[in-house]
Amino acid sequence: MVAAAAPARIQFLQTPTSQAWVEQAIAHLDTVLLDHSHCERKAAGVAMNLMCRYPSSEKLVRALTAIAQEELSHFELVNQWLERRQVPLQPLPAPPYGAGLSKQVRRVEPDRMLDSLLVAALIEARSHERLGLLAAHCPEPELAQFFHSLMASEARHYGAYWVLATTYFDRATVNARLTELSAIESELLATLHPEPRIHS
Amino acid sequence: MVAAAAPARIQFLQTPTSQAWVEQAIAHLDTVLLDHSHCERKAAGVAMNLMCRYPSSEKLVRALTAIAQEELSHFELVNQWLERRQVPLQPLPAPPYGAGLSKQVRRVEPDRMLDSLLVAALIEARSHERLGLLAAHCPEPELAQFFHSLMASEARHYGAYWVLATTYFDRATVNARLTELSAIESELLATLHPEPRIHS
Repeated sequence: MVAAAAPARIQFLQTPTSQAWVEQAIAHLDTVLLDHSHCERKAAGVAMNLMCRYPSSEKLVRALTAIAQEELSHFELVNQWLERRQVPLQPLPAPPYGAGLSKQVRRVEPDRMLDSLLVAALIEARSHERLGLLAAHCPEPELAQFFHSLMASEARHYGAYWVLATTYFDRATVNARLTELSAIESELLATLHPEPRIHS
Repeated sequence: MVAAAAPARIQFLQTPTSQAWVEQAIAHLDTVLLDHSHCERKAAGVAMNLMCRYPSSEKLVRALTAIAQEELSHFELVNQWLERRQVPLQPLPAPPYGAGLSKQVRRVEPDRMLDSLLVAALIEARSHERLGLLAAHCPEPELAQFFHSLMASEARHYGAYWVLATTYFDRATVNARLTELSAIESELLATLHPEPRIHS
């Protein structure tokens, strides 16, 4: 039984993040910050890909334009923190989390749209939870405050993806699929990835 | 000999846009506006793809983050105009222009980076020229003013791509390749595409 860092209060997440992840992340703040820079850029890319795939879905396009803009502005802010800490921008091998979730996206519409929205919601929800843990445990007050400010946006984002899912699909279908995907999401994080990452 | 709509004053462009394009575009403003929405989204995607491909190139990442943010904000503004004119968002088949230019991008680094930056600069330069023509000829004053405001940003963008090219490559190499690519760019537009588009 892995010790949880905090009660699982985040909507959508079946299992809370472990204390082991918090210790790993706090011991490697520069790497986690660099990884978070990549996460923000990738999150903007996810929103843009969906806008491109569903160009006639007006509510989706409008909501995801706002999300992509916000992710890019966070990408910029994280990069400013990296510069200040003299951490050079560089690629980082991704943990198995993102690919593991993408594999769950069914390939035929409209399932593909539902799964894409819910996978994005789950990633945002987990980011929200983990940024909150970083904010609570980071020993540097200014950086902790920065994590706290990002955390609030991630919450808005997972809410927005959820609203989009329920805009295009009925509530029972969304809930049933979310239960399946969130079980897989927790399973993917059950063993701590050896490299410190936001989603290790 | 095709009549030019205005003298070729735009840096980088070898041949000015024809009067025939202006007439086609002004006669199909709704379609051109819808196409421009796709152009803004694609331009944000181009900037984001380059940020993703060269994640350690700090100046590039910083400049393209700003460009992607601005393109997304224009995408949003164009979509507001479409909504106001009751033009539904929908896909539009692209003219051969973008694919024709992409084909010129050499596949091996560092040529690939140089060509990608110069192709992006040329597309922005042409958009700048054509938005200026739309601003000058659009019979609706408020829409003309909107085209004018977009035009100014496209000029900043082609300047930014040019600066990036000269940041990572020497001036003579950049100039020589730009001359080759701009000849192809003009050639791709020499025959008016039958469907009204920003790059028809």
